[in-house]
Amino acid sequence: MSVKPAGPDDLTARYRGYLDCLNAQDWGRLGEFVADDVVRNDARLGLDGYRAMLEADFRAIPDLRFEIGQLAVESPTVAARLQFDCHPAGVLFGLPVNGRRVRFAEHVFYAWRGDRIAMVWSLIDVEAIAGQI
Amino acid sequence: MSVKPAGPDDLTARYRGYLDCLNAQDWGRLGEFVADDVVRNDARLGLDGYRAMLEADFRAIPDLRFEIGQLAVESPTVAARLQFDCHPAGVLFGLPVNGRRVRFAEHVFYAWRGDRIAMVWSLIDVEAIAGQI
Repeated sequence: MSVKPAGPDDLTARYRGYLDCLNAQDWGRLGEFVADDVVRNDARLGLDGYRAMLEADFRAIPDLRFEIGQLAVESPTVAARLQFDCHPAGVLFGLPVNGRRVRFAEHVFYAWRGDRIAMVWSLIDVEAIAGQI
Repeated sequence: MSVKPAGPDDLTARYRGYLDCLNAQDWGRLGEFVADDVVRNDARLGLDGYRAMLEADFRAIPDLRFEIGQLAVESPTVAARLQFDCHPAGVLFGLPVNGRRVRFAEHVFYAWRGDRIAMVWSLIDVEAIAGQI
């Protein structure tokens, strides 16, 4: 078996396809983009755990939308600064947002294995949220 | 005047040169890598302010060393997950570290203009430090 590594343009398109999948909450397709044994921030979530995390994110933030601010793709790595502009319903990251509008960023690195995301390292700008409520 | 955009290999080498400059605390050369009007996290620090920030970082963390964990270069953008393993002397990000060993990451995006860094967006994993003291 050989896993053909994706080129930069392919990988950019795949990553945008992944974000489209998230924004559509099209969870049946998540496994096209995310490996069965995916690890996020050193936790081995697996595809099911990763999907559960994303579903919980959309429950906490009903108008959640993933938008790219900055992007650097160098196969097999994708790095994105994602920008969120949303109204979390209740408490988010321990902060009582309670429906107010907040804008914040996530800086996330993905290591791809072939067509799928195998490792994720994410940091979220919680301090920015704290400054807005 | 034309500013020739750096290719990916050039930019990777330039970025590694920038980190070498930081690790050597060779502040006289910082202007080779950082634009006079550099903006960091929406603050227009300028080269002098940027240098002052870095000098303060090394005062707070005498054994500070910038090491690349993950890197994605797609000109004119560089994205790095930097990994720190160090002994901050006193209070760092409001946390009383007081010389203990801490390991933490920074996720940082740089927009280059020609040979120099023009914009920086940085997030630091302060929560990881809190969990180690």
